[in-house]
Amino acid sequence: MASQKEKAQVFRELHHRKEILVLPNAWDVPSARVFENAGFPAVATSSAGVMVSLGYEDGEEISKEEFLSATRRIVKVLSIPLSADIVAGFGETPEKVGQFARQVIETGAVGVNIEDFQHATKKLAPLELQLQKIKAVRKQADLLGIPIVINARTDALRYAEGDPEAKMKEAIARAKEFRDEGGADCVYPMGLADRDGISRFVKALDYFPVNIMVRKGVPSIDDLQGLGVKRLSFGPAASYAVMGFLKRESKEILEDRNFSGLVEGAISFDELNSLAVPKS
Amino acid sequence: MASQKEKAQVFRELHHRKEILVLPNAWDVPSARVFENAGFPAVATSSAGVMVSLGYEDGEEISKEEFLSATRRIVKVLSIPLSADIVAGFGETPEKVGQFARQVIETGAVGVNIEDFQHATKKLAPLELQLQKIKAVRKQADLLGIPIVINARTDALRYAEGDPEAKMKEAIARAKEFRDEGGADCVYPMGLADRDGISRFVKALDYFPVNIMVRKGVPSIDDLQGLGVKRLSFGPAASYAVMGFLKRESKEILEDRNFSGLVEGAISFDELNSLAVPKS
Repeated sequence: MASQKEKAQVFRELHHRKEILVLPNAWDVPSARVFENAGFPAVATSSAGVMVSLGYEDGEEISKEEFLSATRRIVKVLSIPLSADIVAGFGETPEKVGQFARQVIETGAVGVNIEDFQHATKKLAPLELQLQKIKAVRKQADLLGIPIVINARTDALRYAEGDPEAKMKEAIARAKEFRDEGGADCVYPMGLADRDGISRFVKALDYFPVNIMVRKGVPSIDDLQGLGVKRLSFGPAASYAVMGFLKRESKEILEDRNFSGLVEGAISFDELNSLAVPKS
Repeated sequence: MASQKEKAQVFRELHHRKEILVLPNAWDVPSARVFENAGFPAVATSSAGVMVSLGYEDGEEISKEEFLSATRRIVKVLSIPLSADIVAGFGETPEKVGQFARQVIETGAVGVNIEDFQHATKKLAPLELQLQKIKAVRKQADLLGIPIVINARTDALRYAEGDPEAKMKEAIARAKEFRDEGGADCVYPMGLADRDGISRFVKALDYFPVNIMVRKGVPSIDDLQGLGVKRLSFGPAASYAVMGFLKRESKEILEDRNFSGLVEGAISFDELNSLAVPKS
């Protein structure tokens, strides 16, 4: 199996190809292993997916130790790179965020998402504070000698002040700062889904890697690639889809007294067990 | 919310109605909550489902503490009864099994599955030992004052000696002992799926509650009810189905460059989050 440093280098390189990186977000061990088996070159965690699966609403309610354990479990079974969504870094200060990022990297993760939305205040973090947090993450990664990919997310499109144009300008301004001052490897404008907005954003960033999230209305994978987007992540979309599937199957069983939907297209006991361990 | 004792009584009563109890097996918090929202009257855990989701193959590799934490998380968000599959009881002796069952009941579970297959030796437990284990579980439940439902599983149809007829006779003999000597509330002949075999088994047990597991080839829910089966559990079927769904969606995204399967029929962010907490 590749070393953590090698995995980080592979993951980094996936952000600089002509082909867009399609990055699926898992919420537990078997979902991550299904993605690896399917042929995705890397996997990420969905913070909402992981947390809800463990009984916490999205945010930073989960304890750091439970978060780290969940990340460690997934890293342990993957042969490909794993990137962890660390929300806003689980700390008020850059030092605390750096220390947490260090623990996350020590689980074996080779990438992190870090956002500028502060769950406690429901406001954007001041730009300078956010830059210090991103730099603190990089510092710890450098100390560990792991060239992780930092995907710096801004929630300015939702939470900045002013009209949509002002929010867009703030998102672009923040992303540029994350790139130029923070040393981020990829920027992630949460909520950006329309073709024109994506095109404008990518051009404003001068084709620096931009992460777009799967949601209804987002252009197709090939369209995004044509626009110069370098990374398309699922976010919690696979968690939403799987729970939607389970709702439909439950309804069918209760209303139609028919469980064929559970047994058709299902994997076997042996295959399920194989998802608990690394690919052989 | 109902007390644990009330939940146990409700769960017990569900085994004695004309209508078969259709019992879905969850593997984590949101899967359990989806089942509750759908209208199932109770939920069980799937040992394979829970363990694989946490990175362990089915069996007793998971630590007791992790097993208990997983059970506790699910109980915490359910308003309806939860039954826990405790495999072979995580102990060599009746005393150890009783102590573990006590901890499981203390999480809030109101039912347990306990099997006579010994993972360490890959053989059936001697009948007398298994009866002692079942009695030890009941003793602890009685000490706690919780009238839990003990679903006593036999793997004789797969692991007893002799030809299929000998295995069937051993399965029936064990189930009768579990009922008459062990004090079980329901018996569970693992692997029994054909209509004739199920009919014979139910009659041999004199219409005592029998648990059948969903799998390909099992008669329909209404047929099972007509045969006098009192409980149909999913086993790991929903885990198999969900992972099969995720495989298909992954293939479609990678091969067809199309993620519409992830966004059509999906639940929302708010709905996912609502699955992390009790039903309001």
